Amino acid sequence: MSYSPTPIRSDIAWSTPDRIAVRGLDLPSEILGHFSLADFSFLQLTGRRPTPEQSRVYDALLITLVEHGLTPSALAARMTYAGAPESLQAAVAAGLCGLGSVFVGSTEGAARMLTDALADDPEDLDAAAAEIVAGFRARREPVPGIGHPFHKPVDPRAPRLFEIAAENGLSGRYVDLVQRVAAAGGRAIGKDLPCNATGAIGALTCELGLPVRAVRGLGVMARAIGLVGHILEEGERPMAVELWRRADDEASAHLRPE
Amino acid sequence: MSYSPTPIRSDIAWSTPDRIAVRGLDLPSEILGHFSLADFSFLQLTGRRPTPEQSRVYDALLITLVEHGLTPSALAARMTYAGAPESLQAAVAAGLCGLGSVFVGSTEGAARMLTDALADDPEDLDAAAAEIVAGFRARREPVPGIGHPFHKPVDPRAPRLFEIAAENGLSGRYVDLVQRVAAAGGRAIGKDLPCNATGAIGALTCELGLPVRAVRGLGVMARAIGLVGHILEEGERPMAVELWRRADDEASAHLRPE
Amino acid sequence: MSYSPTPIRSDIAWSTPDRIAVRGLDLPSEILGHFSLADFSFLQLTGRRPTPEQSRVYDALLITLVEHGLTPSALAARMTYAGAPESLQAAVAAGLCGLGSVFVGSTEGAARMLTDALADDPEDLDAAAAEIVAGFRARREPVPGIGHPFHKPVDPRAPRLFEIAAENGLSGRYVDLVQRVAAAGGRAIGKDLPCNATGAIGALTCELGLPVRAVRGLGVMARAIGLVGHILEEGERPMAVELWRRADDEASAHLRPE
Amino acid sequence: MSYSPTPIRSDIAWSTPDRIAVRGLDLPSEILGHFSLADFSFLQLTGRRPTPEQSRVYDALLITLVEHGLTPSALAARMTYAGAPESLQAAVAAGLCGLGSVFVGSTEGAARMLTDALADDPEDLDAAAAEIVAGFRARREPVPGIGHPFHKPVDPRAPRLFEIAAENGLSGRYVDLVQRVAAAGGRAIGKDLPCNATGAIGALTCELGLPVRAVRGLGVMARAIGLVGHILEEGERPMAVELWRRADDEASAHLRPE
Repeated sequence: MSYSPTPIRSDIAWSTPDRIAVRGLDLPSEILGHFSLADFSFLQLTGRRPTPEQSRVYDALLITLVEHGLTPSALAARMTYAGAPESLQAAVAAGLCGLGSVFVGSTEGAARMLTDALADDPEDLDAAAAEIVAGFRARREPVPGIGHPFHKPVDPRAPRLFEIAAENGLSGRYVDLVQRVAAAGGRAIGKDLPCNATGAIGALTCELGLPVRAVRGLGVMARAIGLVGHILEEGERPMAVELWRRADDEASAHLRPE
Repeated sequence: MSYSPTPIRSDIAWSTPDRIAVRGLDLPSEILGHFSLADFSFLQLTGRRPTPEQSRVYDALLITLVEHGLTPSALAARMTYAGAPESLQAAVAAGLCGLGSVFVGSTEGAARMLTDALADDPEDLDAAAAEIVAGFRARREPVPGIGHPFHKPVDPRAPRLFEIAAENGLSGRYVDLVQRVAAAGGRAIGKDLPCNATGAIGALTCELGLPVRAVRGLGVMARAIGLVGHILEEGERPMAVELWRRADDEASAHLRPE
Repeated sequence: MSYSPTPIRSDIAWSTPDRIAVRGLDLPSEILGHFSLADFSFLQLTGRRPTPEQSRVYDALLITLVEHGLTPSALAARMTYAGAPESLQAAVAAGLCGLGSVFVGSTEGAARMLTDALADDPEDLDAAAAEIVAGFRARREPVPGIGHPFHKPVDPRAPRLFEIAAENGLSGRYVDLVQRVAAAGGRAIGKDLPCNATGAIGALTCELGLPVRAVRGLGVMARAIGLVGHILEEGERPMAVELWRRADDEASAHLRPE
Repeated sequence: MSYSPTPIRSDIAWSTPDRIAVRGLDLPSEILGHFSLADFSFLQLTGRRPTPEQSRVYDALLITLVEHGLTPSALAARMTYAGAPESLQAAVAAGLCGLGSVFVGSTEGAARMLTDALADDPEDLDAAAAEIVAGFRARREPVPGIGHPFHKPVDPRAPRLFEIAAENGLSGRYVDLVQRVAAAGGRAIGKDLPCNATGAIGALTCELGLPVRAVRGLGVMARAIGLVGHILEEGERPMAVELWRRADDEASAHLRPE
């Protein structure tokens, strides 16, 4: 071989013929029966086991991300399943591919905004919030995590997530800041723009000490669950073929000869 | 429109400006803070809330599916992330695409085998097991869920999963049958072929009343969690580029001029 | 390392700092400017350069696979692009994931049917056709490549593809057989079931000497082109969000309180 | 329905029971037998038929994008195929998912750089090139399209692509500028940094009048062809399982007990 290899390394898991360990714990004896799925996912992503309080908040934010109705992501999964019912995994994959900058991935923007603003531990959170809003307005970008095109006047998930955080002692400076950002954003345009689910989730991931890079991953993991539900329903009560026929008929009607 | 539409319908979720409901429960007040992620996934997939006993078994089987080391699936996700780090969701999707007939998807085969065999509620499970083994051998196919190429003599996950099922009163006829299948398979070839994790998971999904169609979905959901862990590690300690250079150099060495 | 590696090998391409070769040809001097894209794809897949006659038939069958309107595949790509416009590649990937047993992948079934039937070089093609039809009817499966739910009485692509094959001396026994299969299928159910595009493409891939395993790959390659066209149009004249809103509103109307 | 729909529209294709048209041309009579695959893809993406000169340049740049050896993208496709050989389409999809900002997608950056710089039709291209280089250096970003980590001193594809462009009268201001950018970049760091294939392809897409948004799509379409070739080879001479075993064994060796 002419190429000089450098070693590779992973710290996630190891196995021998009679043992399997993940993140330093023996899977059969120390994990199975001792962890919930969500707690194990926290371990898989961070190497740490969450506290009971973190666990409750983490469960709530993940659940919030599972199911949002017949979103473009759910429709892409159903369309894919209609063509390849033998490959359920590819239908989930197709649905996940769209969790980018516009949907779900936007929680990452909220988490980054809050992380950056609190990196220097500012004293005056109202000033920090005003500065955040002014910055987005100057760049003509929407402030992540505030307002909602459909859920008005208040996205009902946000206050409930904040309540669960408070009950578990996780209502810290990130939660405080995101709500001040919403207030400052509302003042700037002269209407009420309460914090939405994206903003609440972004703040809670920061309170849980999760790295910003992991935030989009939470949405992807959670939505995979939601998509399996949609695919199972598509198998029993299909809509993909009907939506195809309607769309194809309508969209090219202006081209077809009478 | 020349096409006559037929109505479409989904029973999973609905929302209005001030309310969001999933599977008939109000998301903020009846789900958040009241469900674990795994229990909510059971609800999303089946419309039912699991009992506490079902919940413990379900958690264990999902966790077993999350992380299997540097599998082809994990490597595909890491390779994808190396090319498109801005699209974490596409890296997870790439990793999921390979959960087909060879890996993970094989739990479906075990569940189907057991479901089919017990559909007529046979009295003699040993006879049913022998018939199953004879059938696969006649078709020259491997019996799903027994033996393991690496974990010898026993896949340590299987006995632990059976133990958790027994502790929770879920060690019924499917669990019984899969172990008899393993014994019959071993007798047929004259060596020990204990039930592996795939067989145990297949049996437990049946004990939980999950439809066979859902079984591959469990593996896909769970592995999405594992893949996020691998992608986060790839971001910190990359191996994809190194593996590419090694593979490319070695595989075409016989073609390159000196 | 405890694992004993076995060598890996690829015969597709090699490169050195100053040279790049594919399938034994120097890319800059022997391929660029000397191959069409389709001919180069034939080389990439088979290691052979097509004859001019093969090239014309191959171009026609690939083009037939590129664009089929607002199919579920195109809609999945558009839905994905709406959520992640920064990842055009993932939108194409999502669209390809559904090219399975129901759509596009069905050309593989036609090619396999014809390959299997002619493997023993039967003398009487009418008898072979009748046997094929009887086999599918006995298994209660549709005969691949004949009839069309929308293009009636004749799928206009099929006769044109056969015409191009005839003009290029590629109208051999596979083309002959697929048309006899269509005739036999029609006789069996007492109505006209002409050969459709899927059947014609399946037959032409056989005439070109392409392996059955490659046939689905042709559809995937070709459809990738079509999907890029749909995604570019979605960027200029979007429909994904509109289709989402309509579907979500309609499908859960029965659940929403008044 | 409470939602008020707005119409959707697509101008790509239409069909009736006896006709199929794409981009205003009858598919059977005006496209099949009259277009090459590449020319038809130009039509699908732009609505225009390329001139013979454009066609030759377009073929060359697409072919350049098809096959780059055992890249992370090819390895992801092979890994996926090893797990789901029944879903060739999903293996191609997995391979495409990684064509993002790091690989292949980088042609988009080169095209955008050139398009932006020539938007105001500057007189002095050397000044424009110097300004481009200064801008990237100020942002501490690499200049797209120049230098190559492996192909030294010259990426052999670039001069050949420029030669084909010149032979076909398509060596205009974009080609001129990208070469001046390479020269300016080399001067800035005091070593030779010739234009690479990415830079040449970026420039040629501009000369062809393709929109910047389409450029990544060309790489995705072309690579789909290359990936099918790799998957077919993986089916005959597999390497995915071997690479998995090696990687898993090496990466976790430090964790395993002796």
